[in-house]
Parts: sequence; C-alpha cells; structure tokens
Amino acid sequence: MKIGSQAHRSTAISASNSETIVVRGRDLAGELVGNIGFTDHFWLLVTGAMPSAAQRRVLDSTLVAIAEHGLVPSVQASRMTLAAAPEALQGAVAAGILGCGSVVLGSSEAAGRFFAEIVERKKQGASAVDSVQQVVREYRAQRRAIPGYGHPLHKGYDPRAKRLFDVATEVGCAGAHVEIAHEVERQLPDLVGKKLAVNVSGAIPAVLLDAGYPLLALKGVPILARTAGLIAHLLEEQLRPIGFVLSHAAEQAIGYDGEAPAGFKPSDE
Amino acid sequence: MKIGSQAHRSTAISASNSETIVVRGRDLAGELVGNIGFTDHFWLLVTGAMPSAAQRRVLDSTLVAIAEHGLVPSVQASRMTLAAAPEALQGAVAAGILGCGSVVLGSSEAAGRFFAEIVERKKQGASAVDSVQQVVREYRAQRRAIPGYGHPLHKGYDPRAKRLFDVATEVGCAGAHVEIAHEVERQLPDLVGKKLAVNVSGAIPAVLLDAGYPLLALKGVPILARTAGLIAHLLEEQLRPIGFVLSHAAEQAIGYDGEAPAGFKPSDE
Amino acid sequence: MKIGSQAHRSTAISASNSETIVVRGRDLAGELVGNIGFTDHFWLLVTGAMPSAAQRRVLDSTLVAIAEHGLVPSVQASRMTLAAAPEALQGAVAAGILGCGSVVLGSSEAAGRFFAEIVERKKQGASAVDSVQQVVREYRAQRRAIPGYGHPLHKGYDPRAKRLFDVATEVGCAGAHVEIAHEVERQLPDLVGKKLAVNVSGAIPAVLLDAGYPLLALKGVPILARTAGLIAHLLEEQLRPIGFVLSHAAEQAIGYDGEAPAGFKPSDE
Amino acid sequence: MKIGSQAHRSTAISASNSETIVVRGRDLAGELVGNIGFTDHFWLLVTGAMPSAAQRRVLDSTLVAIAEHGLVPSVQASRMTLAAAPEALQGAVAAGILGCGSVVLGSSEAAGRFFAEIVERKKQGASAVDSVQQVVREYRAQRRAIPGYGHPLHKGYDPRAKRLFDVATEVGCAGAHVEIAHEVERQLPDLVGKKLAVNVSGAIPAVLLDAGYPLLALKGVPILARTAGLIAHLLEEQLRPIGFVLSHAAEQAIGYDGEAPAGFKPSDE
Repeated sequence: MKIGSQAHRSTAISASNSETIVVRGRDLAGELVGNIGFTDHFWLLVTGAMPSAAQRRVLDSTLVAIAEHGLVPSVQASRMTLAAAPEALQGAVAAGILGCGSVVLGSSEAAGRFFAEIVERKKQGASAVDSVQQVVREYRAQRRAIPGYGHPLHKGYDPRAKRLFDVATEVGCAGAHVEIAHEVERQLPDLVGKKLAVNVSGAIPAVLLDAGYPLLALKGVPILARTAGLIAHLLEEQLRPIGFVLSHAAEQAIGYDGEAPAGFKPSDE
Repeated sequence: MKIGSQAHRSTAISASNSETIVVRGRDLAGELVGNIGFTDHFWLLVTGAMPSAAQRRVLDSTLVAIAEHGLVPSVQASRMTLAAAPEALQGAVAAGILGCGSVVLGSSEAAGRFFAEIVERKKQGASAVDSVQQVVREYRAQRRAIPGYGHPLHKGYDPRAKRLFDVATEVGCAGAHVEIAHEVERQLPDLVGKKLAVNVSGAIPAVLLDAGYPLLALKGVPILARTAGLIAHLLEEQLRPIGFVLSHAAEQAIGYDGEAPAGFKPSDE
Repeated sequence: MKIGSQAHRSTAISASNSETIVVRGRDLAGELVGNIGFTDHFWLLVTGAMPSAAQRRVLDSTLVAIAEHGLVPSVQASRMTLAAAPEALQGAVAAGILGCGSVVLGSSEAAGRFFAEIVERKKQGASAVDSVQQVVREYRAQRRAIPGYGHPLHKGYDPRAKRLFDVATEVGCAGAHVEIAHEVERQLPDLVGKKLAVNVSGAIPAVLLDAGYPLLALKGVPILARTAGLIAHLLEEQLRPIGFVLSHAAEQAIGYDGEAPAGFKPSDE
Repeated sequence: MKIGSQAHRSTAISASNSETIVVRGRDLAGELVGNIGFTDHFWLLVTGAMPSAAQRRVLDSTLVAIAEHGLVPSVQASRMTLAAAPEALQGAVAAGILGCGSVVLGSSEAAGRFFAEIVERKKQGASAVDSVQQVVREYRAQRRAIPGYGHPLHKGYDPRAKRLFDVATEVGCAGAHVEIAHEVERQLPDLVGKKLAVNVSGAIPAVLLDAGYPLLALKGVPILARTAGLIAHLLEEQLRPIGFVLSHAAEQAIGYDGEAPAGFKPSDE
C-alpha cells in the first residue's frame, strides 16, 4: 500500500556505477578521499557544497565541543547495552544515540528553532529586545521550555558556549543568531525570573545558523559528535568494563515501595 | 543485583567540574574547541593521544570513503523510519546504524581481525604466503566468510579501496596489514576458486591498523562515517520525502504465497 | 552531575531476593507463571491490578488487531536490518519498533489524547457535538492532523476498527471514548470536508480507554503487538530472506537528480 | 545494487486488500480479533498454526516468567532514554530491547542451540550422559560459555525455571530438551567444577522446544516478554521519573583515573 502522497522519486546525494561513486556531484575516490577532511565531507553531504575555512572551523568547533562529557545518561545506556550484548557494537551505539532527545543533547535543534523565530520577527521590523520578549512570552504561554539556557553542572557559565562564541567572532561568522542568543541571556532574568547562562546546546545552533548550516539538520551535529564519544566509551568498555557496575550502583539507589507478599524482604545485594 | 565480576570502577575519558571539562587530559574548552578538527578529536577520544599528520590523513580518508554510498539498506531503513516517526530524528539515525552489521558495513571489523590474525602468524615466523594460506584455510574449515573482498557493484575493483591504499603509501603508513590485504587478494583465486578484489571494508582496517588505530574500535569508523551520510539523507527526507515511496516499491516486488480464505485477492495497489 | 529535579527514588513494579521475585505485589513463580496468560500479565504490569474478563478480552483484541499488516515500512526496515546484521536479532526488532511513530502505528496515542480531550469537554458540560467541534477546530487552527481517521488501503472502513467496536459492545465496555470516536466520524465531512472512517489506531484507544487502560501507556499496545509480528517476519527472514530484494526494488524506484561528473552514467543494476 | 543472492520474492505471513486483512491464512478481523488471545496470535504468527492448549500454556508461562525482573540494565537504559527523549517512547523501548543480548536475556537462544545440539547427538545414538559430555567439552575447548546455568541473584535455584519445568510436566509437554537441561545440570559440577542451577534462560528454550516452538525464533520470546515490562516501566517513568536519579547514582560510583590539567579537581556533585 502507498502511504501518504509523497511525490518525489529522486535523491540528489549519491549515485554510482561499477567504476565510480558520485557524492554530491564529485567523484568520491578521485576527488574527495584523501583530499578533504571528514568535517568538510560532512558539510558537503549535508549542504551540497564545500565549506569555507570559516564554516569548517565553526563546524569543527561545535563537533569537538559536544562530543564528550563523561558518564552522561546516554553513555551509560550505551555501555550497559554493550555489557549485555557484546556481539553488536552497533546496537550499543544506537542505544546511546536514542538518548539524544529533546531534554538532553537534542535541545540544540529546539534552540535553533527558537532563535530562528526571533530572528524572523526582527527581520519583519521589530527590535531585538521586542522580538525576544514576544517569542519568550509565547513560549511561556504555551508552557514550552526555553531551550539552550542553564546547565545542571556549569551553573555560572558553560565554558564550551563561551569558546564557541569566541571562535565564531574570530572567524567573522557571528551574526544575527549569536546576537539573539546573547540578547535572550540578558533578558531571561526579567522574563522568567531566573539568571540562566546560554549553554552549549544554545551556542551550537547560534554559531552554526550564522555560518549557514541548515536548521533542519541541526540535531545531526550533537548526534554525529556524540557518536565519536560513544565509540571511545565502547572501546573502554571492552578493555575495562563498568557497564554492570553502573547498573548495580543505580539499582541500589532506588527503593521498592510497591506491595509484597507477607514476610518478603528485598535483597540488598 | 550485581551481574558478572566487573572489577573496574573508573573511566579515563572525561571528568568535569563547574568550570572545566577535561577530555583525555586536556581542557576541552581551553585547549581543544576551536583548535583541533573533529577527526583529531575522534582519534584523541579513542586512543588518548593526538594523531600525527599521517594518522589524521588516513583516518580522514577512511571516514570520507565509507560515509555515503546512496540508497543502501541502512539508509532506506533510516528514511522509512523518519517518514513514520518524524518526531524523533535520533530514532531514524539509530535505525540506520543498526544496519552496520557483520554482512554490510560492519565487516571492517571482521576484516581487521582476519588481517591481524595473519600478521600475528607472520610475526611468529611463517612467511606471508603461508600465513595467509593457514588462516584462510582455517576460516574455510569453520565455514566463516573471508571478510573484506568482493563487492556486489564494484566487481573489478573497489575505487575507494585503491585510493585508501594510495593515501596510506603516500603518507608512509602502509605496513604489515596493507601487505597482507594485498597478499590475500593475490591468493584468493587459488584458495577459494574465485577472483575477488579487496573492497573498502578490507582497505579500511588494513590502513587503519597500520596507522596505529585500535582493532577493537574498528567498527566505530564505518558507524561514525555512516552517521554523517544518514544525517544528509534525513535532511533530504524532510525536504523531499521518499520514505514511503521506497517502502511501496519494495512491497510491490514481493508476492504472497501463504494461504488465504477462498476468493481473497491481494491488493495490487 | 544530577540532571533536573527528579524527587522520586523508588519503583513499585518489581523487587526480588534470592528465593522470590515479586511483580506488582505477587510472587512471580508461585502465583503468576503457569496460572495467568501473557495478556493478563501485561495488564497487571501496566496497571498494578489483574484485568476483568472484559478488560482482558478488549486488550487481547487490540493486540491481535494491530500485530501484523504485511510488509509495512517498519517490517521492511526490520528485515533489511537483519539481512545486514544477522548477529543481532534484537537490533532488527529495535529498528522495527523505531518506526512506531506519530505517523504510522504510534498514532493510537495521539488519537487517545484527542478523544480524552473531547471527553473532558463533555464532562465539563458541553454536548458531544459541540465538544467534538471545539476540539477539531482547535486542532485545525494549530495545523495538527486529526489522528485515528482514514487509511491508505482500507478507504471505505477499516475492518479491524469495526470489529474492535463490536467486541467492546459485546463485553459491555463501550463508553464515552467509543461514543466520541463515532461522533467525530460523523462530523468529519462537515468539519474537514472529507469523509474519513475511524481506523484501527482510532479504535484501539477508544476501546482501551473505555476499558480503563491508562492513556500514558497507549503507545505500548501497538509497540508490543507489532513486536510479535516482527518476530514472525524475522523468523521468515532467516528461512526465506528477502531483505536485500526489498532494498534493491526500492532503490530501483528512485532516480538520481543531483550533479555528476561529465560522462557519468548511474548503474541500472 | 543487488546485495547477495537472495532468491525468494515472497512472504507467507500476511496479505490484504481494501476489505480484508489475511494473517497466516485467516481473515484477521473476521476470524481472529476478539476470538483468540494475544498468545495464540503470537504462536500463529510465528508457526503458521494455532497452538494446542498445552502449547499456549507453555508459551504463556515463559512470557510471564521473563517479562519483568526489576531495574535490570536494559530497563535502566530504557528509563534513562525516556528521561532524555520523552518525545519518543518507541526509542526508549528500542534502547531497552537492544540490551536483550548474548549475555543478558538473549541467552535463551544460545541455550536452545546448546540443548538442540545435545539432543541431536542423542538421536544419533549416544547416551544422554555422553551427549552432554561431548557437547560441553566442545564448548569448553572453544572457550564458549555454557548458556542457561547460574544466576547472579538466584544462586541456589531460579524459582522461574523450577516453575516452568513443573508447568511443562503438568501439560505433558516435557520431553527430550527438558531431560537434557536437567542432565546438564547434574553433570556440570564434574564437567566445569562448579554447581550451577539451570536458570530461566535455560528453562525457556527447554520447555518451548519440547512444545514445538521453532529454535530460530527463541530470542523473540524474551524480547516480546521484556517489551511488556518495559512499557510498565516507561509508564512509571512518566508518572514518577527516576531516569536521572539512576544515572546520577551510577556516575557517582565511578572514579576518574585519566590525566588532568594541574589543579583540576572533578566535581563530586
């Protein structure tokens, strides 16, 4: 059965024959392999064009910034999965990626949409201050969280965010979205009653959108970056396994408050 | 409950406090973001040390080589998943990564183990020719496939493999594993009765192992690379969706040969 | 680091010691295994209480209704994944489940929320007709799809939906949500300009909510049911593989409309 | 491109037209929905035939036995994933299923292959005692674990295993595989130097294979069963979230033993 009304029947990313693989119009083996870096290739894959030096530097910076932050929930899920299913490293990576959601890691995309909406208002003539106020108030009215601000550990400021803005400025890429990211930070105390610093998931979309990276592929940046971190953790898990140590400690932190047959005493092992 | 006997209770990848994130001994925001590329960072994450220029070039080349090859099964699975569940891009990426298995994409790891075993025999004194013969015969006796040779489309030779060997030679990295990869290719007609060229999943582990990349993290290279390709496809799926066109065409190619109530005629829609 | 402000530190589902496993207050081996069916157990796990005969019959009916519908996209993704990664059946099941999204399969949950909202308006005093009109208009104003109506193949009516309503009536479970499901169907031609029959993803939440099944676990029903279908397909995939036949046929249906080096001709293999 | 040499182009599970959905030869809405239970349907989907009362009781017993065992690693991975990505319940279920691997949960399949191999030797004329000794010794020689014996918590005996064998005897299904499961248990102290009781992952394949359930679909039983448990946990996670409490406690149990810049002190938050 045919679901929906998809009208397209073509792709513009890659084609091949027995001698040649074409990726985004280039001969993969003849022009790309050995000649460009992986970051260039990622930009080319996503946008169809080679990045400028500034675009490459911004993209590299965001990927480096978000690849690794220790034993966060998605890394734990991934390491526990490998401990249980060592035959399938790809399954452990997938389990980790599934934790790049709207609350953790994936909030880059939500923050990108938030900034883009404010920038749009400004383009239509409102001041930066008013554009921020309008959109923040609409989010609050719809009980939507303001994405990209505050961090459970980096409470004063997120050192990755600060560095990303510095890099964007240095390469001359900082523009409307970076401006808005700062303007939101300035106004948040008044608008939501709390001082919250822009975090790495706010800085990433700000600098990438200003660099010309597409909004609809923003979530791909933390996903790709975190995959690199996951692979390092899964190598360590093979060499010095802690997956079941993690699950044991976590289980110990949780009590049982359901019913039980008379005389039953849960194990404290 | 405590599963197994995992004795380790530590990690050496990352630690942090409110001001600083340490990754592999470096201050992430102060030393790495904006200063190194994503490929350097991936090597650092996995090995704990910065790559040499030669190592970076080899790793970049493998990542570029394997990132994209059109509408392969894992890309189709990923695009169909996004069409069905557009609310979770991470789920569509995960579905694609789950197809990096022992038959497709993941065979880099199997080929790496195969080459490493032959190199080990050679180190113990056997000639290259004999080492290859021994290990290939053992694989055949155990009915294991010889990984890293032959390709359904690139039958004469795989242009990516050829290019990867050229890059490895150019940067002075080609060593024992590359030598064995070629030796196996030479002997395969005699040993298995069929001429089969080394493919990209054979070349990747050969050049990476010679460059000093760890065997147990080999599967991470096609997984990381393919994630980049998946993100490009998932952006295209949002802009020009074909997920349900793919599934419709695939379904049409398959008949029903089970039982059915009298008079039932399957839809040909 | 501690993310968010989760205040709970307990679970009420299961506890154990070396002799006894307690599930929802019962001794698993002593009271449940061998004495109750899997459907009873699923209801018990989710709600904490054993189902009545009527509740069990409704839940069984919904699970049977949605378990299988041929080579739908999620089944194709799952079979392609097993073909590529036969070492990890769990990965192929996971790839299939990831396709239980808001557009396909997972729309049961969205339809449940839609009906629950209408039922709530009615409880606050509006007529059924007015409640439906209000909520449908709000959905339309927010450009949200009306979930649970229409089917790409079963255009006149969905035979599974009809049967589920009959079962609910027969066991005396049909109530406010079933009534609303029908009322929406009656009004859709006027409200959206198109006659659309309630489909299986509309009938499932209607009969389950009337039976007392919790709204927040609705998506679990198609996920659990479809897992059964996936396992049947993955057994067939091992015995009579078609995963790569599917992907080949799908690929053939899609053209390449990107750029290419001069003289390049894509393979039509 | 066409991968491999798959010759089949048909399925025997399901077909449909606009009025009728056929599953395993039956009219789904007309014959199955409302008339059979989900366990019957699962057996029908997998085997193509309706189960006998004994087969249904054995399958129900195994599904009930393995559905839930508290905060095991896969449940933790699933709850952490939902906490991070609440927009995609299917992703959290998938993350949990990915932990049904060869070490945890998925060992039912390995145990089934192990028993089947022993039963095969016996059919070829060896005694039960000798058949067990031969296969156990071969496993040991290949350094393969003996699957289905021992449990980290249920050290004396696994109450679920005992109950499953009782049910199989009661319904008259216990046969060659159950006999072998017990025979292995008797001989393990001599063969491996340790007393290890058969566990639930040993009992499940023993009773199911004797009941006529197919070996190649064995892994589907713990996967399907555990999906039910995961859905209960994911409902609880929505109502009383602990996903980040779990990850915080787990992280606290692990130290950092990598390098760090001078003066850096990891957070103990």
